[in-house]
Parts: sequence; structure tokens; C-alpha cells
Amino acid sequence: MHETLGFIGLGNMGQPIAANLLRAGYRLRVYNRTAAKAGPLVAQGATLVSHPSETAERGGIVLTMVANDQALEEVCLRPPALPEMLGPGGIHVSMSTISPMTARKLAEQHARHKVAYLAAPVFGRPEAAAARRLWICLSGQQSAKQRVQPILAAVSQGIFDFGEDPGAANVVKLCGNFLIAAAIEALAEALTLAQKCGLDRKQVAEMLGQTLFACPVYQGYGKQIAENSYEPPGFRLSLGLKDIDLVLQTAATGPMPMPLASLLRDRWLAAVANGRENLDWSAAALGVAEDAGIRVRAASSEV
Amino acid sequence: MHETLGFIGLGNMGQPIAANLLRAGYRLRVYNRTAAKAGPLVAQGATLVSHPSETAERGGIVLTMVANDQALEEVCLRPPALPEMLGPGGIHVSMSTISPMTARKLAEQHARHKVAYLAAPVFGRPEAAAARRLWICLSGQQSAKQRVQPILAAVSQGIFDFGEDPGAANVVKLCGNFLIAAAIEALAEALTLAQKCGLDRKQVAEMLGQTLFACPVYQGYGKQIAENSYEPPGFRLSLGLKDIDLVLQTAATGPMPMPLASLLRDRWLAAVANGRENLDWSAAALGVAEDAGIRVRAASSEV
Amino acid sequence: MHETLGFIGLGNMGQPIAANLLRAGYRLRVYNRTAAKAGPLVAQGATLVSHPSETAERGGIVLTMVANDQALEEVCLRPPALPEMLGPGGIHVSMSTISPMTARKLAEQHARHKVAYLAAPVFGRPEAAAARRLWICLSGQQSAKQRVQPILAAVSQGIFDFGEDPGAANVVKLCGNFLIAAAIEALAEALTLAQKCGLDRKQVAEMLGQTLFACPVYQGYGKQIAENSYEPPGFRLSLGLKDIDLVLQTAATGPMPMPLASLLRDRWLAAVANGRENLDWSAAALGVAEDAGIRVRAASSEV
Amino acid sequence: MHETLGFIGLGNMGQPIAANLLRAGYRLRVYNRTAAKAGPLVAQGATLVSHPSETAERGGIVLTMVANDQALEEVCLRPPALPEMLGPGGIHVSMSTISPMTARKLAEQHARHKVAYLAAPVFGRPEAAAARRLWICLSGQQSAKQRVQPILAAVSQGIFDFGEDPGAANVVKLCGNFLIAAAIEALAEALTLAQKCGLDRKQVAEMLGQTLFACPVYQGYGKQIAENSYEPPGFRLSLGLKDIDLVLQTAATGPMPMPLASLLRDRWLAAVANGRENLDWSAAALGVAEDAGIRVRAASSEV
Repeated sequence: MHETLGFIGLGNMGQPIAANLLRAGYRLRVYNRTAAKAGPLVAQGATLVSHPSETAERGGIVLTMVANDQALEEVCLRPPALPEMLGPGGIHVSMSTISPMTARKLAEQHARHKVAYLAAPVFGRPEAAAARRLWICLSGQQSAKQRVQPILAAVSQGIFDFGEDPGAANVVKLCGNFLIAAAIEALAEALTLAQKCGLDRKQVAEMLGQTLFACPVYQGYGKQIAENSYEPPGFRLSLGLKDIDLVLQTAATGPMPMPLASLLRDRWLAAVANGRENLDWSAAALGVAEDAGIRVRAASSEV
Repeated sequence: MHETLGFIGLGNMGQPIAANLLRAGYRLRVYNRTAAKAGPLVAQGATLVSHPSETAERGGIVLTMVANDQALEEVCLRPPALPEMLGPGGIHVSMSTISPMTARKLAEQHARHKVAYLAAPVFGRPEAAAARRLWICLSGQQSAKQRVQPILAAVSQGIFDFGEDPGAANVVKLCGNFLIAAAIEALAEALTLAQKCGLDRKQVAEMLGQTLFACPVYQGYGKQIAENSYEPPGFRLSLGLKDIDLVLQTAATGPMPMPLASLLRDRWLAAVANGRENLDWSAAALGVAEDAGIRVRAASSEV
Repeated sequence: MHETLGFIGLGNMGQPIAANLLRAGYRLRVYNRTAAKAGPLVAQGATLVSHPSETAERGGIVLTMVANDQALEEVCLRPPALPEMLGPGGIHVSMSTISPMTARKLAEQHARHKVAYLAAPVFGRPEAAAARRLWICLSGQQSAKQRVQPILAAVSQGIFDFGEDPGAANVVKLCGNFLIAAAIEALAEALTLAQKCGLDRKQVAEMLGQTLFACPVYQGYGKQIAENSYEPPGFRLSLGLKDIDLVLQTAATGPMPMPLASLLRDRWLAAVANGRENLDWSAAALGVAEDAGIRVRAASSEV
Repeated sequence: MHETLGFIGLGNMGQPIAANLLRAGYRLRVYNRTAAKAGPLVAQGATLVSHPSETAERGGIVLTMVANDQALEEVCLRPPALPEMLGPGGIHVSMSTISPMTARKLAEQHARHKVAYLAAPVFGRPEAAAARRLWICLSGQQSAKQRVQPILAAVSQGIFDFGEDPGAANVVKLCGNFLIAAAIEALAEALTLAQKCGLDRKQVAEMLGQTLFACPVYQGYGKQIAENSYEPPGFRLSLGLKDIDLVLQTAATGPMPMPLASLLRDRWLAAVANGRENLDWSAAALGVAEDAGIRVRAASSEV
């Protein structure tokens, strides 16, 4: 029997990851702001606790998967503070998409309690999490990374180690999300150009996804954008904007300009200003069509 | 034994395509502005002629692969004009990357001589052409497309039919090149961000190319940009700028704005203004690094 | 009594300029593609001719004010060609907004007939032309500039000499129009920001126009944009897009990127794609509002 | 004799404003983080205190002119808190360039102590402040605005009232600084275009500043940019970037995109990344020249 882990954050991503840990033989103490969401995991054997720090045991391991920087800071700072409860030898595996600056700040806070803070953000949507097909970027203290290796292996198809800087893995995660957003904008412009020239958006998307861009990002988003199908959201547009903002904030610390990221931010901001914050983030493509004089009736998923 | 074809344009792309046609059993009458380049093909059995139209026979098939719109117009208009020499039943298979507007104009010219003009631009670098691993986008008159099918199959790994509009296949080709240029800019910004944050460019590029973006465009350009290795050019930067210009000219006929294409045009123009026109087109990435305060000594391939 | 001049192009700008020349004592032979527009000038004493070159006399002076590069090339090339009819000692004063490349090409054509081609583009709207309050940028052959000085003085409030390059004055004209378009975009973004923050657009525009930006461009366009009043057009949006295109084409010969000009081109293209080509060119501001989620009912001028 | 006022922040702008208040007959209690800077004012009769709140008297008036949002929050929150010391009937006249969000938050804090927080940001450089030629944007509680009217009149050439929202005047200030930055970028692109086409930058700048753009912003920055003269800084480039960031943060609350502001942010970020943070903010123009392949040796002011 494996050890008992803490797990905080049972949203779309946290739930399937926690479920896979249970399946792999770990015992879990789980916490979620909305306790009701813990139901399915409790049914599978998890113990529900009522304060983030109650997920911890001295020298143990806690994983977190929460919405943003602020939520994670609340989890770590709300007294009695999580790092204090973990204490010497403890490890906090932070899987959320946050800024490297926040990660480094929290790592310092944890170090004061002799707790290792590991950045372990993931690539993959909820379905991928359920299927243990996440990719994990990992960075932080070397020995702590070794200790959590089997845990992360139980929920992913691959782990990439980016060294000891606790912010490094977050940088890679932000780079990845930036590249996806850039591909969305590029596909939207290309497919709208094809449409304006009289071609069929779907046929062009399929050809490109079968040849030059035979990878899931282009195949999946190419199809969604070609069909203007943005519901239900796989990743909410407002969260996408949050990530683009994190990219630009991180770049500002460089300092360096990222003009393509700026363009993306403006595109996503316009989408939010026009009421699209709850569609899939690829719905930013609707703005490209409108600038071309095309009014789209987005395909509904309820048909 | 197969029929005799005309082939005009023996540059980096035309040479291996023509060689594959010879290998497949076709006889070729070839023309190139610089006749000396025909040497290897003549050695393999091709007949060299001294005027574009001499490649044609009545009702026959001529393939062209030239540098740009202007070069193709010269080939088609220089008296005695190619379509006139081809005459009724003839087919011109135009493989160059040109604008759909030029393609449509030439198709009309050809139609006056009862010649079918087919757009058949290709995706793939010279190595891919040599290995018969090109992708071909095809559009134009239905019966002509059927007739050239075996010819194109002999030089490619796949043919995609975009209908009867003689400009349609060119639109798809431009969409594809635009997407590649967008990926170059996105990779350059992402890898420079990683570098400014203390990460190793190559490691980040490899991770992304093995996971989210496991396709040749991201793997190949990711490696080049991570290593700042831009020589020898696989595709010259000045030609890349030409293609981005074609994208924007085509979009203007929509009309529609393509802000990402505009950003790319500015990036490539700055590269030309700074003397990089003969590097590989991914050398546009150097501008991203410089805007971040990084002076790069581009890796030489001769080491 | 002054000499007889030729005058070609009797549009919104040409008419009041020609009228001022008549008023100043010059005799005019006028030509316009749509002859009917010459009526008022004929009533004031001008002679209407039926071919551009009939406006010319040997060694004389012809002024042109036409819509674009193509129209001017037609005027100069349609046989019998205007420069040929002007002959040695003749002067062509070209007041249209065209590219410096076209100007230089035409200057060479004229030189072959020993005719001086002068670039003399103007700043000012039709009302300014009527009030002799145009600003003229002038460039070309020195002695020719001296000879036309009193003619240009009769229709303007100031002449700026930019040397002997026949394209130079056009560059300055394009710089000026680019700066105006940039001010329109900047005002649109600023006033929309003010509105989104709960302020009154007009009050903000007035404050800025009375203090930091106490000049006609900001005062006039600030008021139009604050009130969303874009009819009747002082300068049609489609012509504005043409000028932005000329700016970018000229910059490409540098070569140099102009990212702000690219942004403007995209904004104006979106306006045309959305059916605004016949509004005043400051109606590009409507796109800024829409990206902010504001649907504007443009103020009608007919109230 | 006028009443005694508090004055906090004796930098480049605060010093001349405070001096003018003394000259107008007000008595001042002054505070500055670096006390030494108070020397000249003390020599003119001001009283130096050692804590921000000591500038206040019950029901009195305190003016602040500090570097940024954070500095102002420190001034207002450091115990004993300034609003508490001012107490019922007191007024805080906040002249710094800060975000409207911070202004509104501070206004609420002040209201809890029955103190009126007025936003009163100014337009004008130090020379203008010394010459009492500032423009003031004012917003906040009506009766408080009436009471401070003579005080503000003593240091400015004009006051513009934007209503009761304590953030409103800050929005206008940010709009103004955004328009100036936009004019800098536009001038840089235009003058570099002129230079690439063989014209003299200075002559073009002068022509435009005498005609279409006969206002101080274009005349002053036109001359600086034409001459590449960026030292000593009138307004430091790093502060300019801070203001552009405030513009974009404010727009994000709209929400609305401001693509021109994004472009400016990227331009200024590149300038900081290349070591130009202490030059005048118009030195962002150097990036335009470099993208055009021009290496500029900036004119030194020490000649």
C-alpha cells in the first residue's frame, strides 16, 4: 500500500488526477473550496478535510491544482499555513498554471519551513488527465523530484525535468500555452482567408492537419475553428486570457517584448468585451471572421 | 513508355521533381533561364530546349516551377506564347507559389487557347522533393486534373483536390506558408522568453516538439531557432517575405485584415533591412532576440 | 494677363484649385474624364478640351490632380503622350497623392522629352483648397520650381521645397497622411477608453484639443470621433486605405517595417470589409468601439 | 495670509509646484522621502516634517505628487494614516499619475475618515510647472473641488473638471500620455521613412510642425526625434513604460483591447531591454531606426 497524499483543488483537472492516484493505490486526504465536488472521490475512498492544511502530514506530500496564482497563495498562506503543517522533509507539488514569479516566491516561503516546493504544471485537457496522458513539466529541488517521481508517473505519460529553479517548469507551461494561442490565431486567419477566397474551411483545415501540421493542436483546433464550434468549452476563454497575461507579465520581467503575445491578448480581450468569456478559448477566432465582415452563427453543441 | 512532358524551371525544387519524372519513365523537354542547370537532367535523358514554348507539343502537358508571379508570366507570355503552342487539349501544370489572382488571370489566358491551367503548388523542401514526399494542392478543370493524376503521383506522397477554381490551390499553399511563418515567430518569442528566464532553449524546444507539437514544422524550426542555426538556407528569407506579401495581397482582395500576417511582414522586413535576406527564413527569429537585448552570434553550419 | 495653363483632374480638390487659378488671372485649358464636371469652370472662362494632351502647349505648364497612380499614368501615357505634347521646356506640376516610385518613373519618362516633372502634392481638404489655404510640398528640377512658384502661390498659403528628387515631395505627403491616420487611431482608442471608464468622449476630446494637442488635426478628428460623426466624408475611407497602402509600399522599398502603419492598414481594411468604404476615413474608429463591445449608431449628418 | 497646506513629494514636478504655492502666499508643511531635497523650499519658508501625516492638520488640505501608485499607497497607509490625521472636512489633492483603480480605492479609504480624495493629475514638464503653465485634470467631490480651486489656480494655466468619480481625472491623464507616446511612435516611423527615402529628417519634422501639426507635442518631439537627441531626459523612458502599462491595465478593466497601446508597450519594452531606460522616453524612436537597418549614434547633449 502506498503512502497517504494530500490533494487540494478538485476542478476539471484535479478530479481525474486525484482519481488516478487512488486507482494507483495512494490514499488521499482531499480539500476543495466547494466541498460537494469531493463526492465522487470520497466514494472511491478519499478522505475529505475542511482546511487546506489538514491535507498535510509532517514530512508528507501535498499536491495542488487550483485556478490561479491568487488561489494558490490563499492555499499556502491561510493559517495554519500549509508549509508549516508539512514541516521539514515535506513536499508541495504545485500543478497549477501560475507565474514563475509566484512560484519562486512560494518556494522561498516553503524553504523557511524546510519544505520543498516543486513546480509540476501539466499539459492536457480533462480527457487527457482521465486517460493518464498528461505531460508534466517539473522543476525544483533534486531529491524531492526523485521522491515524487512515481506519483507523477501514475498520472501522466511523460515527465520533463527543467532543473532546480522552482519557476522554470511554469515558464515552459506558459511557453506551451502561448504557442497554442498563437496557433489558434494563425488558424483563424488562415481559414478565414480561405473562406473569403471561396474555399471550404473544413477541407483546408483537414489538409493542413494531415500534412504539415499533423499534431493534435492543429488537428483539434483546426476542426473547431473550421466548424466554428466553441461549446462546451474545453478551456474557458477567460482562463486563456489569464494565461496570456501571465506570459506577458513574465516577459516584462525579462524584460522583453512579445508582439505576438500582445496581439493575442488584444484578440482575447475583444472576445471578452463581446461576451465570449465562457466559450472555448478558440472562440477568439470569431473576431477574425468579424473583422473580415463575416457574421458567424457559432455551431451549437446541443444539436 | 510514358508520354513526353515539358518542364520549365530547374531550381532547387524543379530539379528533383523533374528527375523523379524521368525515373518514373516520362520523357522530358526541359527549359531553364540558366541553361547550365539542366546538365544533370540531360545526363539522365532529358532534352534541353532554348525557349519555354519549345517544351510544349500540341495537346500535351507542360509543368512549371519558377520563382514568382513575374517569372511565370514571362514564361506564359513570351512569344510564341506557351498556351498557344500547347493548343487545344493542352495542360499547363503550374507548381510555383504564386498569387491566386495571377493564377486566375493566367487560367483565362490559357482558356482562350483551349488549354487547361492547373494550379499544383507543393509543400516540402528540396529533400522532400527528391524523396517524392511532396504534398500537392491541386485545382482547376476536372478532366485535366484526372489526366495529370499519375504524373503528380509520381513526384509526391499525396494530392489534395480543391475544386475547379484555378486560384484555389494557391490559396491553400499561401495559408500553409503563412502558418509556418507564424509558427516561426511564435517559437522565436517562446524560446527567447525561456532563455530570458534562465532556461535552455534547446531543452524547451525538444520538449514541445515531443509533446504538444509533435510535427515536422515545430520539430525542425524549433531546433533551428533554439540553436540559432540559419545556414545554409532551406528556404531563403527574401522568398519568405515574398510569400508573406502574397498572403497579404490576397487578403486585401477579400477584403480582410490579417494582423498576424502584418506582424510577420514587419518582422521579415526588419530582417531584410538588417542584411539577413540570404539566411534561412527562420532567421527572422534573430530580431526577436535583439528586441530582448540579446546579441546572437548565429551558429555557422560549417563548423 | 497671365499665361495659359493646362489643368487635368476636376474632382473635389482640382475644381477649387483651378477656380483659384482663374481668379488669379490665369487662362486654363481643362480636361476631366467626366467632362460635365468642367461646367462651373467653363462658366468662369476655362476652355474644355477632350484629350489630356490638348491641355498642353509647347514649352508650357500643365497641372494634374487625379485620383491615384494609375489615373496619372493613364494621363501621361495615353497617346499622344502628354510629355511629348509639352515638349522641351515644358513643365508638368503633379499635385496628386501618388507613390514616390511612380513619380520617379514618370519624371524619367518626361525627361526623355525634356519636360520637367515636378511633384507638388498638397495638404488640405476641399474647403482649404477653396480658401487658398493649402500647404504644398514641392520637389523636382530647380529652374522649373522657380517658374511655377507664382502659380502655386496663387492657390496655397505656403510652399515647402524638398530638393530635386521628383519623389521627395510625395514622401512628405505620405508621411503627413500617415501621421493623420495614426492620430485617428490614437484618438479612437483614447476616447473609447474614456467612455468605457464612464467619461464623456466629447469632454475629453475638447480638453485634449485645447491643451496638449491644440492643432486642427486633433481638434477636427477629435470632435468627429467623439461624436461618431462620419458623414458626409471629408476624405473617403477607401482613399485613406489607398494612401496607407502607398506608405507601406514605399517603406518596403527602404526596406523598413512600419508596424504602426501595418496596424492602421488592418484597421482600415476591417472597416472596408464591414461596408464603411464611403464614410469619412475617421470612421475606422468604429472598429475600436466594436472591439470594446460597444455598438455605435453613427451620428447622421442629415439631422 | 493664506492657510497652511501640506505638500508631499518634492521631485522634479513637486518642487516647482510647491515653490509656486509659497510664492502665492500659502504656508507649507512639506515632506519628502529624501529630506535633503526640501532644502530650497525650506529656504523659501516651508516647514519640513519627518512623517507624511505630519503635513496634515485636522480638516486641512494636503497635496501629493509622488512617483507611482505604490508610493502613494505608502503615503496614505503608513501609520498614523494620512486620512486619519486629516479627519472630517480634510482634503487630499492627489496630483500623481496613477491608475484610476488605485484612485478609487484610496478615495474609499479616505471617505471612511470623512476626507475628500481629489484626483488632480497635471500635464506639463518641470519647466511648465515652474512657469505655472500646467494643465490640471480634476475630479472628485464637488464641494472639495470648489475649496481647492484657488490653490490649483495658483500653479496652473487651466483646470478641467471631469465630475465626481475620483478616478476620472486619472483616466484623462492616461489618455493624454498615451496620445503623446503614440505621436512619438508615429513621428519615429515617419521620419525614418523620410530618411530611408533620402530626405532630411529635420526638414520634414519642421514642415509638419509648422502646418498640420502646429502644436507643442509634435514640434518638441519632432525636433528631438529628427535630431536623435534624447539626453538629458525630460521624462524618463522607464516612467513612460510605467504609464503605458497603466493605460493597458485600465483598458483591461473595461474590458477593451488597445492595439496601439500594445504596440507602444512592446516598443518601450525593447528600449528598456536594450539599456535605454534612463534616456528621454522619445528614445523609443531608436528602435524604429534599428529595425530599418540604421545604427544611430544618439546626439549627446553635452556638446
